[in-house]
Amino acid sequence: MAASVDELRSLAEALLRQRGVPADGARLQADLLIEAELRGHPSHGLQRLPRLIARIGNGVASATARGRHTWRGDAVLEVDGERGLGPVVITAAIDALAERVEQTGVVLAAIANANHIGMLAPYAEAAAERGLIAILLSTSEALVHPHGGTRAMLGTNPIAVAVPTAGHPFVLDLATSTVSMGKVHHHALRGEPLPEGWAVDAAGRATTDAEAAKSGAIAPFGGAKGYGLGLAIELIVAALTGANLAPDIRGTLDAEHVANKGDVVILVEPAAAPGLAARISAYLDAVRASPPADPDHPVAIPGDGMRARREAAHRRGIDVPPRLLAELRELEAA
Amino acid sequence: MAASVDELRSLAEALLRQRGVPADGARLQADLLIEAELRGHPSHGLQRLPRLIARIGNGVASATARGRHTWRGDAVLEVDGERGLGPVVITAAIDALAERVEQTGVVLAAIANANHIGMLAPYAEAAAERGLIAILLSTSEALVHPHGGTRAMLGTNPIAVAVPTAGHPFVLDLATSTVSMGKVHHHALRGEPLPEGWAVDAAGRATTDAEAAKSGAIAPFGGAKGYGLGLAIELIVAALTGANLAPDIRGTLDAEHVANKGDVVILVEPAAAPGLAARISAYLDAVRASPPADPDHPVAIPGDGMRARREAAHRRGIDVPPRLLAELRELEAA
Repeated sequence: MAASVDELRSLAEALLRQRGVPADGARLQADLLIEAELRGHPSHGLQRLPRLIARIGNGVASATARGRHTWRGDAVLEVDGERGLGPVVITAAIDALAERVEQTGVVLAAIANANHIGMLAPYAEAAAERGLIAILLSTSEALVHPHGGTRAMLGTNPIAVAVPTAGHPFVLDLATSTVSMGKVHHHALRGEPLPEGWAVDAAGRATTDAEAAKSGAIAPFGGAKGYGLGLAIELIVAALTGANLAPDIRGTLDAEHVANKGDVVILVEPAAAPGLAARISAYLDAVRASPPADPDHPVAIPGDGMRARREAAHRRGIDVPPRLLAELRELEAA
Repeated sequence: MAASVDELRSLAEALLRQRGVPADGARLQADLLIEAELRGHPSHGLQRLPRLIARIGNGVASATARGRHTWRGDAVLEVDGERGLGPVVITAAIDALAERVEQTGVVLAAIANANHIGMLAPYAEAAAERGLIAILLSTSEALVHPHGGTRAMLGTNPIAVAVPTAGHPFVLDLATSTVSMGKVHHHALRGEPLPEGWAVDAAGRATTDAEAAKSGAIAPFGGAKGYGLGLAIELIVAALTGANLAPDIRGTLDAEHVANKGDVVILVEPAAAPGLAARISAYLDAVRASPPADPDHPVAIPGDGMRARREAAHRRGIDVPPRLLAELRELEAA
């Protein structure tokens, strides 16, 4: 049964405020979890909330920190997240960047010591709606094996890109793994086998057994190239933030450890060429209208599906597993 | 038969100088072509030289231009390439960026109206050897079909990333297509079939016939994700440089049109965290030493193979097709 978006948002906000999160921070964190639900990524949605609340209780997440800002050069913002909530810390950083970008044209934030920022797309999209090109990178616990390897050595290391157009911004948000570990857990829960090539088990053997894959590793997307991209993101984030590398990263999937991954945001002002945004929109429409391989499936632009899911979910509400909803309501009563 | 590296470099330089390219520019352009040969990418090597010389003759490539620089904000360098040789224009831009980065921490060059810059890896690697993190993006003629599409709508849109370590820099350089069009031509020349999934023919039908694929389109790497990444690069480069989008791009594969693609360079100073470069090197060694899927093939780091090929070629010389060598010698005599 679908729950109303407003009701879920209020519930999430109330839970966070009860744990000492100020109203605006609670709103940002709740929004981010709801946005992931709306966009069809429940692995980054409300199921993360009970753990986040436990993290605040355990002192590894701060209810109030917004991050300490130090400019390293005129255009690089070094952010010590002070264990703050991911969306709170990154939003404060992006606001500081957006103010500075008018002077420098390009700005970069290197964020360490913040909690999980969640899905990257909403931040990138919001920046593009302000007229900026946005690139976001983030690291995580080791979950992905190298191409030709069998042990989890890399994070799922997502990249998001948003570019302003004459209409909706172009928004890309992808993990550099074939699938998320959340999806593997989802298959395990339902007793469904995994497609071949998704994962290996703890001994490093290729497996379609979702339960066995949970303690194994996920394949990088796109073979050697996707692996290379994931590794590049791993290194860029570590080199810019001083944060840990995947095998030493903790704190986005547990309730006990300080989150020691890193996040990077790059914002750039587009060229002032006249008609540029309209030219980009016309190009994207031409790609959409180009001949599909299967006449029943027109060519899609990244973000189109997400936008459609988001609009439908706003109308229909969000399907939250009854057990999760009960857990959240119990936490509220506690 | 392998030709000596020095001999080929001298030949390339002499040819360029004969066409009015100053000594330092001839050296940069020759170096770039030789580097591609050394790294095992002849599609970006000497086979491009006769066309480049024709481009100078036709006035669509300038022998002397280095690009006009305008700072758009403190940290964004707008470069009008003035039809200059790609390596000359981008090297002048990177030199200007490297000077500015000490003040701003991050810098970006948006380059339009330059000729083909060739393989991206050497520029990124050189920046990392100066202690900087480098990200390079470039666009090209439409050669790649969208995921789920059949018509060439995107460039091969490569990305290169280099990150300093305690040893050799980490260097990634990948096209967002499954293969290069150069490789398709190579298969066609030898009458070899293409692996399935590489390409479609002019009618948009999947094909393993290399000859038919030459007038068709190449698949993006990694399905929807690789397509998304290629499209993001297409849009970032266009939005930053004002350059054309793939279907309207000309001038990197022909001798008649002004090159109207774009190139983007981002340089960033790494964090000053003590021991960071050593930590990154230790991590890369741990990835290399992690258990391989096939005991005969240890896990590789992008750039390792390239470095090995480069060192071997320096010893053995470069295999240049006799017809190409004859053509170059004939041009020299002309």
